[in-house]
Amino acid sequence: MTDFYKGLSPVKFEGEQSTNALAYRHYNKDEIVAGKRMEDHIRPAVAYWHSFAAEGGDPFGGRTFDRPWYDKGMDGARMKADVAFETFDMLDVPFFCFHDVDIAPEGDSLAESNKNVREIGEIFAKKMETSRTRLLWGTANLFSNRRYMGGAATNPDPDVFTYAAAQVKNVLELTHELGGENYVLWGGREGYETLLNTKIGQESDQMARFLTLVIEHADKIGFKGQILIEPKPQEPTKHQYDYDVATVYGFLQRYGLEKRVKCNIEVGHAFLAGHSFEHELAVASSLGMLGSVDANRNDLQSGWDTDHFPNNPGEMALAFYYILKQGGLGKGGFNFDAKLRRQSLDPADLLYGHVGGLDVLARGLKAAAAMIEDGEFDRLLDERYAGWQSGEGKAILNGERSLENLAERVERENLQPQPRSGRQEYLENLVNRFV
Amino acid sequence: MTDFYKGLSPVKFEGEQSTNALAYRHYNKDEIVAGKRMEDHIRPAVAYWHSFAAEGGDPFGGRTFDRPWYDKGMDGARMKADVAFETFDMLDVPFFCFHDVDIAPEGDSLAESNKNVREIGEIFAKKMETSRTRLLWGTANLFSNRRYMGGAATNPDPDVFTYAAAQVKNVLELTHELGGENYVLWGGREGYETLLNTKIGQESDQMARFLTLVIEHADKIGFKGQILIEPKPQEPTKHQYDYDVATVYGFLQRYGLEKRVKCNIEVGHAFLAGHSFEHELAVASSLGMLGSVDANRNDLQSGWDTDHFPNNPGEMALAFYYILKQGGLGKGGFNFDAKLRRQSLDPADLLYGHVGGLDVLARGLKAAAAMIEDGEFDRLLDERYAGWQSGEGKAILNGERSLENLAERVERENLQPQPRSGRQEYLENLVNRFV
Amino acid sequence: MTDFYKGLSPVKFEGEQSTNALAYRHYNKDEIVAGKRMEDHIRPAVAYWHSFAAEGGDPFGGRTFDRPWYDKGMDGARMKADVAFETFDMLDVPFFCFHDVDIAPEGDSLAESNKNVREIGEIFAKKMETSRTRLLWGTANLFSNRRYMGGAATNPDPDVFTYAAAQVKNVLELTHELGGENYVLWGGREGYETLLNTKIGQESDQMARFLTLVIEHADKIGFKGQILIEPKPQEPTKHQYDYDVATVYGFLQRYGLEKRVKCNIEVGHAFLAGHSFEHELAVASSLGMLGSVDANRNDLQSGWDTDHFPNNPGEMALAFYYILKQGGLGKGGFNFDAKLRRQSLDPADLLYGHVGGLDVLARGLKAAAAMIEDGEFDRLLDERYAGWQSGEGKAILNGERSLENLAERVERENLQPQPRSGRQEYLENLVNRFV
Amino acid sequence: MTDFYKGLSPVKFEGEQSTNALAYRHYNKDEIVAGKRMEDHIRPAVAYWHSFAAEGGDPFGGRTFDRPWYDKGMDGARMKADVAFETFDMLDVPFFCFHDVDIAPEGDSLAESNKNVREIGEIFAKKMETSRTRLLWGTANLFSNRRYMGGAATNPDPDVFTYAAAQVKNVLELTHELGGENYVLWGGREGYETLLNTKIGQESDQMARFLTLVIEHADKIGFKGQILIEPKPQEPTKHQYDYDVATVYGFLQRYGLEKRVKCNIEVGHAFLAGHSFEHELAVASSLGMLGSVDANRNDLQSGWDTDHFPNNPGEMALAFYYILKQGGLGKGGFNFDAKLRRQSLDPADLLYGHVGGLDVLARGLKAAAAMIEDGEFDRLLDERYAGWQSGEGKAILNGERSLENLAERVERENLQPQPRSGRQEYLENLVNRFV
Repeated sequence: MTDFYKGLSPVKFEGEQSTNALAYRHYNKDEIVAGKRMEDHIRPAVAYWHSFAAEGGDPFGGRTFDRPWYDKGMDGARMKADVAFETFDMLDVPFFCFHDVDIAPEGDSLAESNKNVREIGEIFAKKMETSRTRLLWGTANLFSNRRYMGGAATNPDPDVFTYAAAQVKNVLELTHELGGENYVLWGGREGYETLLNTKIGQESDQMARFLTLVIEHADKIGFKGQILIEPKPQEPTKHQYDYDVATVYGFLQRYGLEKRVKCNIEVGHAFLAGHSFEHELAVASSLGMLGSVDANRNDLQSGWDTDHFPNNPGEMALAFYYILKQGGLGKGGFNFDAKLRRQSLDPADLLYGHVGGLDVLARGLKAAAAMIEDGEFDRLLDERYAGWQSGEGKAILNGERSLENLAERVERENLQPQPRSGRQEYLENLVNRFV
Repeated sequence: MTDFYKGLSPVKFEGEQSTNALAYRHYNKDEIVAGKRMEDHIRPAVAYWHSFAAEGGDPFGGRTFDRPWYDKGMDGARMKADVAFETFDMLDVPFFCFHDVDIAPEGDSLAESNKNVREIGEIFAKKMETSRTRLLWGTANLFSNRRYMGGAATNPDPDVFTYAAAQVKNVLELTHELGGENYVLWGGREGYETLLNTKIGQESDQMARFLTLVIEHADKIGFKGQILIEPKPQEPTKHQYDYDVATVYGFLQRYGLEKRVKCNIEVGHAFLAGHSFEHELAVASSLGMLGSVDANRNDLQSGWDTDHFPNNPGEMALAFYYILKQGGLGKGGFNFDAKLRRQSLDPADLLYGHVGGLDVLARGLKAAAAMIEDGEFDRLLDERYAGWQSGEGKAILNGERSLENLAERVERENLQPQPRSGRQEYLENLVNRFV
Repeated sequence: MTDFYKGLSPVKFEGEQSTNALAYRHYNKDEIVAGKRMEDHIRPAVAYWHSFAAEGGDPFGGRTFDRPWYDKGMDGARMKADVAFETFDMLDVPFFCFHDVDIAPEGDSLAESNKNVREIGEIFAKKMETSRTRLLWGTANLFSNRRYMGGAATNPDPDVFTYAAAQVKNVLELTHELGGENYVLWGGREGYETLLNTKIGQESDQMARFLTLVIEHADKIGFKGQILIEPKPQEPTKHQYDYDVATVYGFLQRYGLEKRVKCNIEVGHAFLAGHSFEHELAVASSLGMLGSVDANRNDLQSGWDTDHFPNNPGEMALAFYYILKQGGLGKGGFNFDAKLRRQSLDPADLLYGHVGGLDVLARGLKAAAAMIEDGEFDRLLDERYAGWQSGEGKAILNGERSLENLAERVERENLQPQPRSGRQEYLENLVNRFV
Repeated sequence: MTDFYKGLSPVKFEGEQSTNALAYRHYNKDEIVAGKRMEDHIRPAVAYWHSFAAEGGDPFGGRTFDRPWYDKGMDGARMKADVAFETFDMLDVPFFCFHDVDIAPEGDSLAESNKNVREIGEIFAKKMETSRTRLLWGTANLFSNRRYMGGAATNPDPDVFTYAAAQVKNVLELTHELGGENYVLWGGREGYETLLNTKIGQESDQMARFLTLVIEHADKIGFKGQILIEPKPQEPTKHQYDYDVATVYGFLQRYGLEKRVKCNIEVGHAFLAGHSFEHELAVASSLGMLGSVDANRNDLQSGWDTDHFPNNPGEMALAFYYILKQGGLGKGGFNFDAKLRRQSLDPADLLYGHVGGLDVLARGLKAAAAMIEDGEFDRLLDERYAGWQSGEGKAILNGERSLENLAERVERENLQPQPRSGRQEYLENLVNRFV
């Protein structure tokens, strides 16, 4: 036991009236909502990256945090693992997730880097024997090292593709061995800085090839988890190929991969792409692509990824509405790839972030369950589209009408369709009844 | 001959030294650039909508223009047609384009509306006997009338779908009869105002059905032109389904239509979607979807569609670079769906807009042709990706390598790929050498 | 009594458990919050413009609503006044507000326009004898008519300035006579479309002169209300001079008017200017400029003014925090210059909008009052800045230290200031405890 | 002489036909434009920060560059100074500029840090004996070190203010001693991350106090240069107090400092604030606040500061239009605080950036001079506002008319002002004639 959280007690559910800043007020893991334990709906995962590896830097300033494991190589990595699992225990969360470079320092060769990662992986395995926290997903960081500055899978240099492939192989296998339920790909450098030096058709083919190799290897080793792409429109690149859910879907279809890959959708990335979070969820769900969620929100006035902890229950209610409607996230979950503000130096700040975020998710979940139970939304939606369930509407959708048939009917009946209220104010008020 | 342009002379090419504001300084239609007449590259089309039907209104104020054909029903429509063809002659352009409601007033029934449209269509046909201006494309306005407030193809009411289908049938046939080379669909209301009243999966199916009907009818009547979708991310709707090229491509693939439909890409719509114009062209071209171009640019500080005439030669140079690289626009062209500023009241303003816009296109075309002739861009691009043309790179792309093969090679060779300069500053300077 | 709301009953407070969509669930006007009636805190005003004069049009389509008073001249204006006061009664609100052109049609001359406005003003006066609804503010519409296309006060033509001045005189006097508590100026066209035809220094002088004339006339007629400027960064213009609160403040200071004018701050305008709503309130309050509030929010993905009814209690809690901290809005209030969605055709939709909006304001008010009563926010803020209350901090602020003194102290004490946590996560959680 | 630029020759003017990528094609320092040497108009300055201290990192990845002076303490700083002056010579530029932390490593105490800075300052002084390059401005970096994470002047801790003051004293004095013509303050952390922990009124007072101390010390030591504030709306902070020129002006007025401080305006910061670059210049010039320019542009699709070298001649033409109209920048200049792209690893890339940027500035300057010499812009502007030069217009501006006078005139003359064309298309074409 380290003394990182010295003086702080594990976080428990105490109910809405609690004023204990380190207690859950809404997140009650065993509470049954819509027929399932709250924890089983949300499946929250603490992210190694922002929680343990980030240092408080930004483009205009360096490290502000002061963690005892910084600059200590593999010793630091072991201490970091200890604190990570203490954090999981303090927060009582069922999952965590990581990039390879979060958990162990890079070595002088890939062989050495992979060995470091594996060594920490063994520590994880050991800790998981006594901890209840499981691995939601693993991933390889293919964007921080300078070798990836021009892309990993989409690099103009096939050697970089090769190196990246070898790195993924290691993390995919480790994820599998640790019982991870998903493997995530975020293409942070798969895009371009300028079209002037970029062949986008070529890079698209490379990206598809890379993804195919990952799927084939997953199959080969018997990995049954989900393969997830996390869309983001830009940053660090000017343009990232996995722009948003619709773009990812088009890409997957083009290469025949749309049945094998789903999306890990981030609140803040949706916003940067010009969408609402619920939009990305609704689109993904309608395409069978909603696999998991990254709970980070964006500051609404900042044009870059700010990765805040969630704090808007209304936003999360709409999110859970789509998740519940599709029967849940399956093997996915909600990862808190959410980072502390640069001024949030204290260990307690790390707990506050997760506690507040989980409470907001719990409020959203309960609101969505109540919306669905109430049934008014579904009833109004069905009523609005009822015309397509029978008669002419159904015949049109079934392909039983041509343009000529339709034109002839307009003329015959002197059709004059009358608009009906969309009732947006009513529906927004209705949401607020549950949030 | 009306007296709309009284006192103004037809616009001619006078060369770069001319200070005549109503002369072309760069657009010299018969000048050969990259082996083809300039006009045959650009294929410019004056748009009926903004040029003759718009009134200078905006959300905070009404009509500012004062055209003699306003509020005069079919008499006005005939006068408008006269001025339109006088404009084409004044500008000496080879093409025009229109929506049905631009050219004739709506009647009390679709039958009457269509009759009005047909009557003006006959006037067009007659005028085209003596004018050299041809029809680039036609389209149906499925967004202005209140019946379409909740969508046309994606309306919850099948009767609205039906009405829209009948309207398209009329314009598609007229377009065909007038020798139009393209038919455009812009889904201005195909989207949503709030997800709370929207079934996006259902609406997607409706939209695909509608498009399929249009394609089938085009085939039936022997229309050999291109069917084009014009992407736009939003406005008037909060979200428009044809968000950008990548989204349209995913939609088309989903319904097996990607071989039959291309895109009409607008500068300003690209910008609203968070892209550069050249990005949308490059993406479309790489997907075989670059069919035509809408030359309207956006004000860079305005969050809505401003539809200015083009004025940035550098932007157009990059556009023509992709167009020339794919061998031109084929049956497509550049439509000036570009509108006068609200304060630009005078007939001469309408000419200034087109003259300046065409000159900018001509500068862009010549710069792009020079860039390609120079060859340095292509050479550098090929050099940058050369590793994929042979050896390991080629083997990877050909599917001859697995993750294991690649990992094994990294280890065997202790692969340490070294980054190489992306040379962005050099390339940007190089563009400026030609613009 | 018209039959506009036929079948609908007046809206009453029924409490949080009510499922009546036309009842207040949170807005209980007589409930005492922080020592004052809820109504006296919020001072809500129904806006004539969006509620009765707007027609559901947008840049891509015309009128969708179908009100019985449309296109009926002064008869329509009288009917509109009847429905307006019925609406005020249905909603039981204490205030309304209007532009001149909302209440009466423009005539062939200003004299006739003013006469029309006055005639409806008399009807208002009469209705106010039996209604409890009072006038929060009046204003002149100096942006819709084509004469104002190039600005009103900032028009290049002094005759337009003159016409605008005469129009304001009429509405200012009417506002005064009707007991209006504020007069608002929104400079919808006071800005530019292009710098190429604009002398901004000249226009700034004109704008200051206009404002000075208004203040002088207000004094002359004994108007004791607040003069308010409503900032907006753009739209309809590319740039609007009253960009945001800080810009308005700089302008007022430059012409010595900062003591006479405050701001009417709109949620959506703050967002368009790149700010949060609470930012604009905090800035205005710190400058003594927070006079009144316009409750319209923006759609977060739309780059133009959408003027939705408020629906985010968390946003309103932060707003009321600043309002309560400065002791309330005084003569100001919350106007609902909030418009129905274009598809919200039914009379009931108009009520839903206001009911939901008022409930959200009530939730925000109660949360803010609880935050202040709890005291933790203020305590933490005071603690954070405590160093400036005494010792060196106080001496610095009092001007008792020079750069040399300070440098000398750093050297003498080898000063090494240590950063302290900003506690953002803790504070955000704390807000959520009250919302 | 280091071997950093081994194999590369000094950059000379070779004229437009040159295809030498390391020659100036437009920037001909001694060419007379509008009566002055080109160099004396532009006064370009190479920035130490991005050119020599930046490492190619971004929020998602670390250092990509590999400069021989990295990680070598004061030895590295000396080598960096050598390469810096070699760069100035290679580029033949008249100015440079720096932050203290760019030129020398921070020590364990401020005393040591300042000593390091001073030591490099002495090297600069020595080099300037043989180099023709002079110091345009110096500044203190008050944002990178973790002590400044919550602001420097606006920190809640007076000790941080004190430390910052001592740091500025050192750099201000060094700037003075080196003959620097300006001292710049960029308040990178003077703003807030969340209003929840911020007293903006208090922080505004602190910021004014700090600025006053700087001015007083400048006076005391006899510094005759300009004191400049560089506005930026946000990043790294959520909100930066020096949002834009108008905001800075309001702040300065509030504390009576508007006569002593001007602005250093950056292209990219203008864009992030929702403005065009020419807008900020026009506003600043109209307020007497246009002191200097930071030439970095932003990527148009990136929501953060990208600090590219300028590449748009049209943008720079409008900039120089305002600069020439106010008689030049005086002691100010154009600093290239412009950074290499992260993939631009090679020493030559650093030269390409500056060469291309300077050529673009030269094109802009020449276009602006031609626009002014042509006179059409000024003539049209004067014509447009002519009504304010005499008669009623002049009387209004002179304060000789009241609202009553104006209203009376409207009635007496039945004033019906008629709108006139704003001629935007004509004017935009006219700009393109010169660019």
